[in-house]
Amino acid sequence: MTKPLLLFFLLLQLPLSSTAQEKLRAREHGIAPGILTPGPLNTITDVAGVSVGQKNLVIGDSIRTGVTVILPHQGNIFQEKVPAAIFVGNGFGKAIGTTQIEELGNIETPIALTNTLNSFLVANALIDYTLSVPENTKIRSVNPVVGETNDGWLNDIRGRHVKSSDVMEAITSASTGAVEEGNVGAGTGTRCLGFKGGIGTASRKLPKEKGGYTVGVLVQTNFGGILTINGAPVGEELNNFYMAEDVPYVVDGSCMIIIATDAPLSARNLKRLATRSFLAFGKVGSFSSNGSGDYSIAFSTHPSVRVPYSSTETVRTIKTVPNDEMSPLFLAVVEASEEAIYNSLFMATDMEGQKGRTMKALPVEKTLSILDKYNARKK
Amino acid sequence: MTKPLLLFFLLLQLPLSSTAQEKLRAREHGIAPGILTPGPLNTITDVAGVSVGQKNLVIGDSIRTGVTVILPHQGNIFQEKVPAAIFVGNGFGKAIGTTQIEELGNIETPIALTNTLNSFLVANALIDYTLSVPENTKIRSVNPVVGETNDGWLNDIRGRHVKSSDVMEAITSASTGAVEEGNVGAGTGTRCLGFKGGIGTASRKLPKEKGGYTVGVLVQTNFGGILTINGAPVGEELNNFYMAEDVPYVVDGSCMIIIATDAPLSARNLKRLATRSFLAFGKVGSFSSNGSGDYSIAFSTHPSVRVPYSSTETVRTIKTVPNDEMSPLFLAVVEASEEAIYNSLFMATDMEGQKGRTMKALPVEKTLSILDKYNARKK
Amino acid sequence: MTKPLLLFFLLLQLPLSSTAQEKLRAREHGIAPGILTPGPLNTITDVAGVSVGQKNLVIGDSIRTGVTVILPHQGNIFQEKVPAAIFVGNGFGKAIGTTQIEELGNIETPIALTNTLNSFLVANALIDYTLSVPENTKIRSVNPVVGETNDGWLNDIRGRHVKSSDVMEAITSASTGAVEEGNVGAGTGTRCLGFKGGIGTASRKLPKEKGGYTVGVLVQTNFGGILTINGAPVGEELNNFYMAEDVPYVVDGSCMIIIATDAPLSARNLKRLATRSFLAFGKVGSFSSNGSGDYSIAFSTHPSVRVPYSSTETVRTIKTVPNDEMSPLFLAVVEASEEAIYNSLFMATDMEGQKGRTMKALPVEKTLSILDKYNARKK
Amino acid sequence: MTKPLLLFFLLLQLPLSSTAQEKLRAREHGIAPGILTPGPLNTITDVAGVSVGQKNLVIGDSIRTGVTVILPHQGNIFQEKVPAAIFVGNGFGKAIGTTQIEELGNIETPIALTNTLNSFLVANALIDYTLSVPENTKIRSVNPVVGETNDGWLNDIRGRHVKSSDVMEAITSASTGAVEEGNVGAGTGTRCLGFKGGIGTASRKLPKEKGGYTVGVLVQTNFGGILTINGAPVGEELNNFYMAEDVPYVVDGSCMIIIATDAPLSARNLKRLATRSFLAFGKVGSFSSNGSGDYSIAFSTHPSVRVPYSSTETVRTIKTVPNDEMSPLFLAVVEASEEAIYNSLFMATDMEGQKGRTMKALPVEKTLSILDKYNARKK
Repeated sequence: MTKPLLLFFLLLQLPLSSTAQEKLRAREHGIAPGILTPGPLNTITDVAGVSVGQKNLVIGDSIRTGVTVILPHQGNIFQEKVPAAIFVGNGFGKAIGTTQIEELGNIETPIALTNTLNSFLVANALIDYTLSVPENTKIRSVNPVVGETNDGWLNDIRGRHVKSSDVMEAITSASTGAVEEGNVGAGTGTRCLGFKGGIGTASRKLPKEKGGYTVGVLVQTNFGGILTINGAPVGEELNNFYMAEDVPYVVDGSCMIIIATDAPLSARNLKRLATRSFLAFGKVGSFSSNGSGDYSIAFSTHPSVRVPYSSTETVRTIKTVPNDEMSPLFLAVVEASEEAIYNSLFMATDMEGQKGRTMKALPVEKTLSILDKYNARKK
Repeated sequence: MTKPLLLFFLLLQLPLSSTAQEKLRAREHGIAPGILTPGPLNTITDVAGVSVGQKNLVIGDSIRTGVTVILPHQGNIFQEKVPAAIFVGNGFGKAIGTTQIEELGNIETPIALTNTLNSFLVANALIDYTLSVPENTKIRSVNPVVGETNDGWLNDIRGRHVKSSDVMEAITSASTGAVEEGNVGAGTGTRCLGFKGGIGTASRKLPKEKGGYTVGVLVQTNFGGILTINGAPVGEELNNFYMAEDVPYVVDGSCMIIIATDAPLSARNLKRLATRSFLAFGKVGSFSSNGSGDYSIAFSTHPSVRVPYSSTETVRTIKTVPNDEMSPLFLAVVEASEEAIYNSLFMATDMEGQKGRTMKALPVEKTLSILDKYNARKK
Repeated sequence: MTKPLLLFFLLLQLPLSSTAQEKLRAREHGIAPGILTPGPLNTITDVAGVSVGQKNLVIGDSIRTGVTVILPHQGNIFQEKVPAAIFVGNGFGKAIGTTQIEELGNIETPIALTNTLNSFLVANALIDYTLSVPENTKIRSVNPVVGETNDGWLNDIRGRHVKSSDVMEAITSASTGAVEEGNVGAGTGTRCLGFKGGIGTASRKLPKEKGGYTVGVLVQTNFGGILTINGAPVGEELNNFYMAEDVPYVVDGSCMIIIATDAPLSARNLKRLATRSFLAFGKVGSFSSNGSGDYSIAFSTHPSVRVPYSSTETVRTIKTVPNDEMSPLFLAVVEASEEAIYNSLFMATDMEGQKGRTMKALPVEKTLSILDKYNARKK
Repeated sequence: MTKPLLLFFLLLQLPLSSTAQEKLRAREHGIAPGILTPGPLNTITDVAGVSVGQKNLVIGDSIRTGVTVILPHQGNIFQEKVPAAIFVGNGFGKAIGTTQIEELGNIETPIALTNTLNSFLVANALIDYTLSVPENTKIRSVNPVVGETNDGWLNDIRGRHVKSSDVMEAITSASTGAVEEGNVGAGTGTRCLGFKGGIGTASRKLPKEKGGYTVGVLVQTNFGGILTINGAPVGEELNNFYMAEDVPYVVDGSCMIIIATDAPLSARNLKRLATRSFLAFGKVGSFSSNGSGDYSIAFSTHPSVRVPYSSTETVRTIKTVPNDEMSPLFLAVVEASEEAIYNSLFMATDMEGQKGRTMKALPVEKTLSILDKYNARKK
């Protein structure tokens, strides 16, 4: 987020974080992983038509959670499904809707992210939403898509505080513009690599001769490991990493990675795209620990590949990017996923939660010094 | 169910079906698929320790649904997980908990079956239940396992009428004895192969020299096709089948198959076991149509393979049946699944539902005549 | 095969079987599973452009094997790949090319079937063939597709007698017309359900209002179980089945099912199509025993979905059948697979092999009597 | 390899590389990724009982290939199979044996690595070998396990020059000690990340309180991307990377990762272990391009989990590491895989091949300067 945009949100009084530190995104600090160029906002919403809505629940001493929704397009998603696929890096999670995505190759609701124990209520809320859309008055089957991570250290997760109205609010407030990051929505109470995690996003736009497509990524980070930023061993330098002595480090957690592209891809090639995001997961220092439920969901917004719910067409004519043209997209998703994770860390702020616990954000100044020690920033 | 048991249940005033026809199970009609012998009750509860609980919702003109729960053992399932696996025949369904089963190889809640749109509320109810168990006061992650079929033709499915209390009631009333079949629990409002479907169960006990294990199956039938019973083309003879002229046949639906065994199996061999149940699905006349979400979940109850939630053991010693000994179990699951589907049909009764719709049960007398025409009954 | 065609082949002196019994296909005996209509030849070659070539190796006392190849079209398959998918019912087999089919969604060589231990030499022969095609002089990667079953009871399988020249001969002699069945090609030495197995084929043509597509199936049968023909318990009646007392029954083996269709299907829907063939496997009495490696490979011949090896197109425009239109194709593949298996049995003849062993063909007259007892034939 | 060992091999006149540069392993240059400690040799053979054998084919101007075999133990592997699993990162490859590994959860031959078009002859050679072992005189089914990468730029790959005798020689010469790296065996002609690739290996030994297990990795590197070493952007600094302007960079290729551990793991947890190696793949700069067939195969050598071919046991008692204890092993495999890839680069030397082509090894001095610029070496 650029500074003017940040101010814009502050003026709108949208909740940003528990403490009002001014935060910069990774790229604003000179952290620019990879060789490709981001889209205009460097967000998942750089993929035209994609919108993101978030609702934070920061209530009292113990509720630190929320919901983030990603809408593939601005129409009726159930009536105009989009091709989609899921890669399961570590299935120790409660991701919902997965088998139908795999079988039918599409999604028909917004994708919602939330906390682990709230997943099912949020899925039910997606049904509430879908049934409530005027055109959908007769439908009797809906496959809600929900991802989650476990914010139960800061948040009273057993309380399942995200309600249907919160999901509805996130959906109706979704915007195709800038995306708030850090302690927001489903990232309100998460932890990542020893620090406060949250929501992050980034994008890449391919050169025209490589197809000119945009790949946008949004992550909900809540996992552990040994933090590396742009190659620099930040976790070790800060003595905050898995297996560090005398550090009460919790390695488990999870990571959700949502990937949008305007390239006309089959579900099969979307699955391949989703698979590559796991590579970025290694680059930031995760080893996908036993308790880390790591899923990547990718979808295409290209109009020709949308799947109408009702159609008289018995054969459809669609566009598709052949296998041979996929490599640039694969590179793009790795880069955007890596940067989205950094953004989730840099944009997060300290958070106090239940039982008097506090999760500190990544210490920016110290981190930048470390990055400089390893020559890991562009200047 | 033997007749004395049936009377016993009638005396207990447990709801049997909307019309009080006396029903016999397939085997009582001489329909005995396969060459192996059923267990004592010919139910999934023949696998020692397994219990089944059901709650029917037959309310007013339009609520025709319910919930069926299967408990792998009588202890705390979360604290003593059981190895499990899932086979996805057709992933056009909302089965919940699948990726974690695949990744960790176990289940940690009862398995609940219900209607499609209620899946998520029922999953949330399994969390309610699991969190409420005294030993589980500190847990912050639960992977509920839910299967579903779509009873939205007879039932006001959009209303999502199954509540947490219904699930709790099904769990607390679960019994290790006889299992009610037909229009009960999650089968209250289902349709199968052109007739009223429902819940069915059956089992096989292997000869001692083949391991002596028991395999029990419980099905929720709601799928279409061309009904065949023990080889006889009943659907065609009754002119009620997919593609039959002038028959308003709905082929889609779904089938859930739950498999229990006391054999000490790894998750891998449980997956192989689950896969074989799909073969039975062909034998009864299904072709797993596009809209039929068909899943099989198998678990082992053997004490040595249970997975403790908390343990100081860093290496466990377990029993396991080697690959080479699996064939008899594979045969058993095919036979029991086939018979369980027949039981779901024979034990179902006519059901009136929403919008004045009625689904007729399989016409028993006519069916038996057809079976006799094809010499498909033992006498 | 109709009788005139049979005579035609006999006149051509093509090898039919070790004994010159005149054989009729299942349908000629009144065995007509399902409700759909076969294509003109009731073979996989009813799918326009598909050809089948076979080479039998019946040499001396102990060589009883061969190779069967299926060519998706008459052009250069490497240069014009076809969309394809594989379903693994039981992965205890040596099927070759599977991961690339899954990843890229296509095949680029003929599909070859042979015996287990010869799989790799036959795969290498497919490379020989592919490299030898004039247009392919520069290619450096080929993904041969090979399926196999274990004919090592009748055949000296350790000798790996199928040579590259045999594969080449099968390919060059492939025909788009009638397909020989029984003890031919890769089915020369196989056993099925207690009797001589072999190659079988069948097809279904959908009514125009269901798309008018053709689905063709070719099987290599070598598996065990409890034979059922069109619902009649033939295995039990003939006292030749798995677990029958005092019968030296070998249940293991394998089954390969190759599926062709002219419907323009994505790899994803081809996988769904392949999955349904497993249902037919249940109908004939298999339970996919531990040692039975059961694979189904499906491909589409539709010109619009072919995948060019070299192309300047960075986006392709293709046709695709939507999910909702798949059900009739699913039914077709179940029916054709079932009938193809019957054909493999009815067209097989007694075979003597190594170590003085003989495998008897299904006793036709007795079988027909049994079928009549169960009213399982159309008259 | 330590220098004395290197000299030892030189004295033995084992072929090291085309030019006799003295090479140091990554760690000897101060490149020590991760926080865990290598085993004594820092090789896959640190896992007790594992041996590696290699045969190089550097013949004339155009043959630059070979074979590398990994033997899980020193007994008869067919008679004492080991649990195993495979993770497919990108299935655009010809890996052999995959479906049986997935289904049965074990391997029964040495694992052989070679070039793409030779895979099938090498698989056949593994059958030759297995059939030739005295105890195996009656077996009729073997599942050879072969991985490959495409060395067809330097090597006359269409010639398929690796013969059965080469495989046999590699097997019989296999050693449990030091492992040669770089341009050897299956890595003789490969390219990696813009430089000469090859064979690399590394290991990690967990602290006793984390189980004390050893994880060893061997890689065959032949893939592209944007080389990063221990976080430093070496590829960009050397202007040799995918999409670099005016660089004839070939991104495709492939990577095989073989993982051994002495931890008693189920096939399921071995699959999870294999999956994590893909994370290391991201760390070195791969994005798993379209044409990169990337597979990881993991096996356990623990005696209790071996799978006897013939056994009278109908139930086995085995040890197993529970899910909760897996995280340290996951970290270990990521670290060892990363370091093994570096070793494949540092130990490779310039190689001339067919058509006068030369592939330059990573320029060590320049690379070390770059690493120092990014503070990426331990001193």
